[in-house]
Amino acid sequence: MPKQERAVRTRHSLICAAAEAFERYGYVQAKLSDISASAGVSPGALHFHFKSKAAMAATVEASAGAALRREAQLAQRPGVNALQRLTDTSHALAGRLRGDVVARAGYKLSNEAPRGAGPTLHQEWQGCVRRLLAQAFEEALLIEGTEHAVVGDGIVAATTGFELLGREDAAWLSAATLTAFWRLLLPSIARPETLRALHPGDRAVRAGRERSPIG
Amino acid sequence: MPKQERAVRTRHSLICAAAEAFERYGYVQAKLSDISASAGVSPGALHFHFKSKAAMAATVEASAGAALRREAQLAQRPGVNALQRLTDTSHALAGRLRGDVVARAGYKLSNEAPRGAGPTLHQEWQGCVRRLLAQAFEEALLIEGTEHAVVGDGIVAATTGFELLGREDAAWLSAATLTAFWRLLLPSIARPETLRALHPGDRAVRAGRERSPIG
Repeated sequence: MPKQERAVRTRHSLICAAAEAFERYGYVQAKLSDISASAGVSPGALHFHFKSKAAMAATVEASAGAALRREAQLAQRPGVNALQRLTDTSHALAGRLRGDVVARAGYKLSNEAPRGAGPTLHQEWQGCVRRLLAQAFEEALLIEGTEHAVVGDGIVAATTGFELLGREDAAWLSAATLTAFWRLLLPSIARPETLRALHPGDRAVRAGRERSPIG
Repeated sequence: MPKQERAVRTRHSLICAAAEAFERYGYVQAKLSDISASAGVSPGALHFHFKSKAAMAATVEASAGAALRREAQLAQRPGVNALQRLTDTSHALAGRLRGDVVARAGYKLSNEAPRGAGPTLHQEWQGCVRRLLAQAFEEALLIEGTEHAVVGDGIVAATTGFELLGREDAAWLSAATLTAFWRLLLPSIARPETLRALHPGDRAVRAGRERSPIG
């Protein structure tokens, strides 16, 4: 294997091992010696890639942020209205959290590790929800008089709660829980004609079942 | 001061100092030496009352649980329907979290400190929400077809989110945020005749403003 490719692989193994340790033990109690051992790498090699635990946590959080942003981006399909893009984005992010330890660790670290001046992942999600609701308002999808700032706060709070509760019990992050939440909320914010065309479920699951585009 | 009274005061000071340290630094990083210093107590006196950091955290969590349970109990006024009792309870708990560092630290510890086999404070709140919604169903307050398990999950998730987000920004735990949440949710679950009599706001604030009983 060429030297550079080997370095990329080592770095990747270290990031995954670090995410597992941060998820399980939290930032403060995760040990660099356990991380290097579980990645099958010498402590020296770990220090070649990451000069401190804080640097490692920052990389896990940045990787999680990048993966979640990419996931959110993929959910912004052109020609689909802003409310559908909002539900699709929430499902895409929950799916990522279910399947990707780096994403889960990144969210957890975003609350507990020392960090730079940038927004937390919770704050980025909050911005995303507010932006899509403002677009839904501009696209005249919302029932007259809907206070979209209030609705946005409710959505941010509930989904943040799903993430926190999901750390103990994965059912909180299931597609079924999220679908039920949207089924409850959407009728009180979407105009009837918008509501009829909205799919509150997970697009990935729907696509598999229906074998046809949605919208 | 009699010896026993002094011991009770010392213990109380230690619990408050511990709660402040756990809230600020988290369980793992809180230091017993800082706690005894900030309570104005010698390390020996601290060890007389609490034999370990885990014992101290368990006491803070238990005190928080007791205070929150008492608050929830006071919100169960007789002659008031179950949906009103649910909104009143949520406001009472948020008020306690706003004003009481022991309650806030207890919630935080409930996620991160080593603990016994009992339910977390989040799980207790979940049980309380489910119980009150089941009563609301029995009292025929809910719109036909309301799935109260789903509604309960949504309420638990959103209020858990308010607590988590409130750790960084107190506005998430304000009476205004919670009132807006109930204004958004109640119309989609309460029958119109129930809805007209419901007050989504903070009873403590209402009592001051309206100077009359509510219901």
